[in-house]
Formats: sequence, C-alpha cells, structure tokens
Amino acid sequence: MTKQYGGSPEETDLRRADSLAREIFSDVANKWALLIIEGLGERTLRFSALRDEVEGISHKMLTQNLRTLERNGLVERRVYPTVPPRVEYTLTEPGRALRATVDAMCEWTQRHLGHIDASRRRFDA
Amino acid sequence: MTKQYGGSPEETDLRRADSLAREIFSDVANKWALLIIEGLGERTLRFSALRDEVEGISHKMLTQNLRTLERNGLVERRVYPTVPPRVEYTLTEPGRALRATVDAMCEWTQRHLGHIDASRRRFDA
Repeated sequence: MTKQYGGSPEETDLRRADSLAREIFSDVANKWALLIIEGLGERTLRFSALRDEVEGISHKMLTQNLRTLERNGLVERRVYPTVPPRVEYTLTEPGRALRATVDAMCEWTQRHLGHIDASRRRFDA
Repeated sequence: MTKQYGGSPEETDLRRADSLAREIFSDVANKWALLIIEGLGERTLRFSALRDEVEGISHKMLTQNLRTLERNGLVERRVYPTVPPRVEYTLTEPGRALRATVDAMCEWTQRHLGHIDASRRRFDA
C-alpha cells in the first residue's frame, strides 16, 4: 500500500483519501468491531441484548467500538426519551455491506478449521 | 455467537470446534494480519521486502504476526541455507482464500469513503 505523491492539489486529495482509507481499515479490521457487526445483523438491538450476542466483550470495549462504528456511520444509534432512556443500535446500509465480508470471513474460518488445527499442532510440536 | 452445549462427546467436539473458530477469527481479524496477507498477495517475499509493502508496521509486529500466520498455516516460511540465511514468505492456499475477503474489505473501504468521511465530520462537529 506504499504510494508516492507529489505536491499538486489533486495529489493532496489522493493523499488524504489514502490516509482516510487506512484510518477506516484500522477502525473496522479488528475482532470486536467485526463481531459487533456480525452480532447486530439485520436486527435493532439494545446495548444489553447486543452485549449478549457478542460473547466475551466487556462493557467498555462494546461502548468504545459502538462509538467508533457510529462515528464512521456504520451503526445508527437511536435514543428514545423514556425513563430510563431506551438506546437502540442498527446497522446502516454501509454497515450491512461490510457485514457481507464479515460473513465471508466466518465461512472461511469454518472451511479451514481442519487445516488450521493440523497446522497448529505441527507448529506447537 | 452464543451457543449452549451439553456434556456428550459430540457436544464436546462441537464446543472445541467453536472455541477454535473463535481463536482463529481472533488471530486473523486484526489490521496487521490482514495487511500482511494483502501485502504478500501472489508473491514470495523476504522479510524486508514485505515490511516495505506493509506501510507503518514495526519489525516486532511483523515478526509476531508472521509467526501467528505461520502457526495457523496461512503463510509458509522457507529458510535457505545461505550466509546469511535467506528467509522467504508465501501465502498458502487457505491464506490466498482469506485474501479474497481482505480484498472485499478494501473495496468496501474505497466504495464508502465519502459516506464515512461525511459521517465523521457530522459526528465530530
């Protein structure tokens, strides 16, 4: 992904887009962000229900990752003025599009379980 | 991904497969592992050439991630008995299969750059 840019306005735009793409990749290419996207799926869930879906995630990690996903426009957060306030999370269209690649990654994991298990045993021996 | 299992041998196998799948997902669903897979692509590269491909990665992170990828059988490491030894890395077939999903994630990033940029500006305002 190494690229060389000069100093023209077009090149400044290209540099900005490239740096933005790296930031976004960094935000989404992590286990928790991807498991949250997978856990939400097509549904609208409250924080506690979502936490039940994403096994092993801490309150803090879920809060931080939801904030990052919301900032990037992948998750929509809706607050209803009840007492106490009800807060719900849903994937946006770009969030749902990303979910397709997470699904592919989960399928890849299932398909290569045997190969990876055997490779780990050899490596650890 | 929450699942309930009982105590039969089949259920023990299922539990083991599920826990293995989570470990593998955890190993590969991180920025550096995915960028290394993308950086290797169809080529065979030496450590230093691979490091040039994966912008911003430290020597330590590249070493650690290559070891994890090798352990999982996604990267093959070949050592040639020259002085000094030449060490080369190539994706295995499962590694190349995972690369297709990384490509999809990079395409997703490029396609949604505008939406995400706008969303971030709104969020930060």
